[in-house]
Amino acid sequence: MQEVVLGLLGLGNIGGGVWDLIRTFGDEVETRTGMRLRVKKALVLDKRFHGGHEVPEEVLTTDGAEILEDPEIQIVCEFLGGEQPAASMMLRALENGKCVVTANKMALSLHLDELRAMAQKTGAGLYFEASVGGAIPVLTSIQSPLIANHIEQMMGIVNGTTNYILTRMAAEGAEYETVLKDAQRLGLAEPDPTADVEGMDAAYKLSIMGSLAFHSRIHMEDIYREGITKVTAEDIAFGREMGYVLKLLAIGKDNGESIEARVHPAFLPAEHPLARVDGSLNAIYLYGHSFKDMMLEGRGAGDAPTASAIVGDIILAARNRTHPVAYFRPDPLPVADDWQSKYFIRMKAKDAPGVLAEVTGLLAGEGISVSAMMQKGAAPGGKATLIVITHSAPEKAVRRVVEALNPEICQVENVIRVEG
Amino acid sequence: MQEVVLGLLGLGNIGGGVWDLIRTFGDEVETRTGMRLRVKKALVLDKRFHGGHEVPEEVLTTDGAEILEDPEIQIVCEFLGGEQPAASMMLRALENGKCVVTANKMALSLHLDELRAMAQKTGAGLYFEASVGGAIPVLTSIQSPLIANHIEQMMGIVNGTTNYILTRMAAEGAEYETVLKDAQRLGLAEPDPTADVEGMDAAYKLSIMGSLAFHSRIHMEDIYREGITKVTAEDIAFGREMGYVLKLLAIGKDNGESIEARVHPAFLPAEHPLARVDGSLNAIYLYGHSFKDMMLEGRGAGDAPTASAIVGDIILAARNRTHPVAYFRPDPLPVADDWQSKYFIRMKAKDAPGVLAEVTGLLAGEGISVSAMMQKGAAPGGKATLIVITHSAPEKAVRRVVEALNPEICQVENVIRVEG
Repeated sequence: MQEVVLGLLGLGNIGGGVWDLIRTFGDEVETRTGMRLRVKKALVLDKRFHGGHEVPEEVLTTDGAEILEDPEIQIVCEFLGGEQPAASMMLRALENGKCVVTANKMALSLHLDELRAMAQKTGAGLYFEASVGGAIPVLTSIQSPLIANHIEQMMGIVNGTTNYILTRMAAEGAEYETVLKDAQRLGLAEPDPTADVEGMDAAYKLSIMGSLAFHSRIHMEDIYREGITKVTAEDIAFGREMGYVLKLLAIGKDNGESIEARVHPAFLPAEHPLARVDGSLNAIYLYGHSFKDMMLEGRGAGDAPTASAIVGDIILAARNRTHPVAYFRPDPLPVADDWQSKYFIRMKAKDAPGVLAEVTGLLAGEGISVSAMMQKGAAPGGKATLIVITHSAPEKAVRRVVEALNPEICQVENVIRVEG
Repeated sequence: MQEVVLGLLGLGNIGGGVWDLIRTFGDEVETRTGMRLRVKKALVLDKRFHGGHEVPEEVLTTDGAEILEDPEIQIVCEFLGGEQPAASMMLRALENGKCVVTANKMALSLHLDELRAMAQKTGAGLYFEASVGGAIPVLTSIQSPLIANHIEQMMGIVNGTTNYILTRMAAEGAEYETVLKDAQRLGLAEPDPTADVEGMDAAYKLSIMGSLAFHSRIHMEDIYREGITKVTAEDIAFGREMGYVLKLLAIGKDNGESIEARVHPAFLPAEHPLARVDGSLNAIYLYGHSFKDMMLEGRGAGDAPTASAIVGDIILAARNRTHPVAYFRPDPLPVADDWQSKYFIRMKAKDAPGVLAEVTGLLAGEGISVSAMMQKGAAPGGKATLIVITHSAPEKAVRRVVEALNPEICQVENVIRVEG
C-alpha cells in the first residue's frame, strides 16, 4: 500500500465532489491500485461554511500555505476556479515539486506556458483531464493512445449551458432570451452568463485541447470567437428545413502549415454524429490521419463526472515516476485569420426586381457558388426572407459580400457557418 | 533520445500497417516523445512474401526465436492472430522480460490469466488497447481516467462486419443471406463468417473489456452468445415501426453481486446514442457511478486505425518504468444465467378466437406485462403476424412462455431482446 497525501485548494462543488468520491470509493480505489488517497488539508475561506460535506475540523484550513508549503503533501488539487489566485497557487505548488491536478480551464488556458515550464523545471506533474469535457477522457486520449497521429481536425461541443439553450430553442421554437431566463431559473446558466454564451468557456477549452492535439500553443487571443446571443428561433427553423442542426462548436484544424481555432455557432448536417448530442452533454469529434474519425461523448460538467476525472488524474500522478510533459513545437504554427467554410446567410430582401441578381452577382464576383437558396413569405411590395447556403468559400470573401450588400434592398440578418 | 527496439511477430495487414506508420510517422513520434522506434526484426513465413511493405531484407526472419530470444528487443508486437502459436509466443516474450503489445482478442481472451500472471512475475508489460474497438481508446480509459468508478454497464457495437450487415439489412429491407454474400464479395465479411456472425468475435472482446471494467475475470464460456443469422428483414421492419433499431450488442452489467455478460442482437430505441452507429463503425457505451453516461465511437478495424492503437501502446510501454497490471478480484463475481430485459416476440398466430387470450394468459402467468402489441396481415382463417413487446422481465420466464406456447396455434418466429 502506497499512501498518497493530497491537499485540496477549495471545497465547493467540484472540491466537495472529489472529497465525497474519495470518502465513498477510496477503499475500492485502494484495492484496485494499491494507493490510499488521504486528504490532509482542504483550503476554505471560512471553516464554518463548506457545503455540508463531512470534513473533519482538522482537515480544514484557511491558509493556503498550510498546503503549498507542507512537504508531506504530494499532490495539490486546485478547485478555486477563475484565473487568480488559482494560477499563482498552482505555480507555487509545482515550484515546491508537488503535482498539480486541476479542472480550471481559465487559469490553465491563460497560464499554461509558465505552469508547463515550472513543471518541467522541477519534474512535478501537471494534470488537467477534467478541464475539457468533464469526465470525457479526451486529453488523455490525445496525449497517449492517439499520440501516433497527425490530428487534422477537432470539433467539440464543450459547453453544456449553450448546448442546453440551443437544444431547447430547437425543440420549442423558442427565442434565446426566453430559454436563457429559464436556464438561469433552473440553475443551468449563471446569473451572469457571459462566459458561456459568448463562447469564452469553449474557447478556453479549445485553447487547451488544441494546443495538445496540434502540439502548438494556441492562445486565447488567437481564437476567433462568436457566441450564441445573435441566434434566433428563425435561424434554427430555416436550418432545420434545410437538414441542419445548430450547435456552438469549438473547431480546431491543422493543415500542417497553419492552424484554425474558432468558436462559433455552426450548422451541422442532421446525420453528423455531433448533431444529436443534446442538452448538457459534451462531445468531441476528432479526425486523425491514422485513427480516422472518432467521437468521445459524455458528461462535460457536474460534481460527480468532474470528480471522476480528477481522481483519475490523481491516480495517474501518483503512479507515474516521471510525469509526461506535452510536446509543443518550439515555433508554433500560425493561427489563420481566414478559413474555408460553407455559409448560411439569412437576409430580409425587398420584393423587387433585381434583388436576387444583386445577391447572386456579388457572390459570383467573389467566386462563391451557391449550394441552396430559399425565398419565403414575400407580400407584394413587402420584404421576403431569403436564405442562401454557399459551397465552401473563404470567410473573408463572404464577409466582403455581406458588407457590399445594400441594406436598403437586402438586409443581412445573420451569417452562420455550416460545418461537417 | 531513447531508442526503443521492437520485434514484430507477423507482417500481414496489421503488422504491415504498423510498419508503415512507424516508417512514415516515426520521426514525428520521436520529436513528440523523445523515443526512436526501431523495428529490428519482423517474423514472416516466407521472406519473399510480405505484402509489399518496404521492409529491408535484413529485418525479415522466418525464425521466431530471433525475436523472442534477442535480449536487445524490448517490445514484441504480436500480429499473428488466432490462438496459437500467438499465445505461446507472447508468453515466451513476457517470460523473457519483454513487453508485449497485441491486437489479438482471441489469444488474449483465452489466455489472459496466464499472460497476466507471467507479466506480473517478470514485471514485463502486457498492452492490448487495439484488441477491442480498434483505435477507440476504451481499455486505456477504463483502466486509467475512469478508474475511480463502479462501471455498472457497458454496451458495445464491437464487430464491424455484423454492424455493416445489419445496417444494410435495415436500409434496404434485404435478408441476411443476401447482404452477407454481398459483404463477402466486397471483402467486408470473411469467406467463413462464423466468428463474426455467430458473435464469437464480439464475445472475445466483451470478455476482455468486461474483465477490465468489472475487475472480475469473465471467460468466454461464461458469455451468453447468439449471432445475427436468425434475424430477418421482417424483424427489423417491425422493430422500426415500433421505434427500434437492431444492433448486435456486447453487453456487460455489474450489480455488485453478479455480472451479466451476453452477446446477442438487440433492439435499441432509435434515440439511443448507439442506434445511429452505422456501417463498420464501432462504439462502446459505458455507465459509471461517477462519470455517468459516456460513449466512445470510432474505427474498430482497418490497418491504419489498428496501427494507431498499437503504436500508442508501444509508446506507453516504452515510457512506463513500471507496467500497470489490471486488478482482478481474487474471487470473481458469478456470471448470471438469468437477467432482466424487455423482449420483442414475433409470432405467426392462427386467426382464431382464443389465440390472443392464450398468449396474454401465459405471459400473465409468469408475471410478465406487455408494453406494446401489434397484429398484422390476418386473412380470414389464415395466419396473422403478432408482435408483443414486454416490459422488463426475467429471461428465463420469457423462455418458459415461448416453450409453453402451442406451435399449432401460435408459432414463435423470433425473440429479440430490447435494451437501452
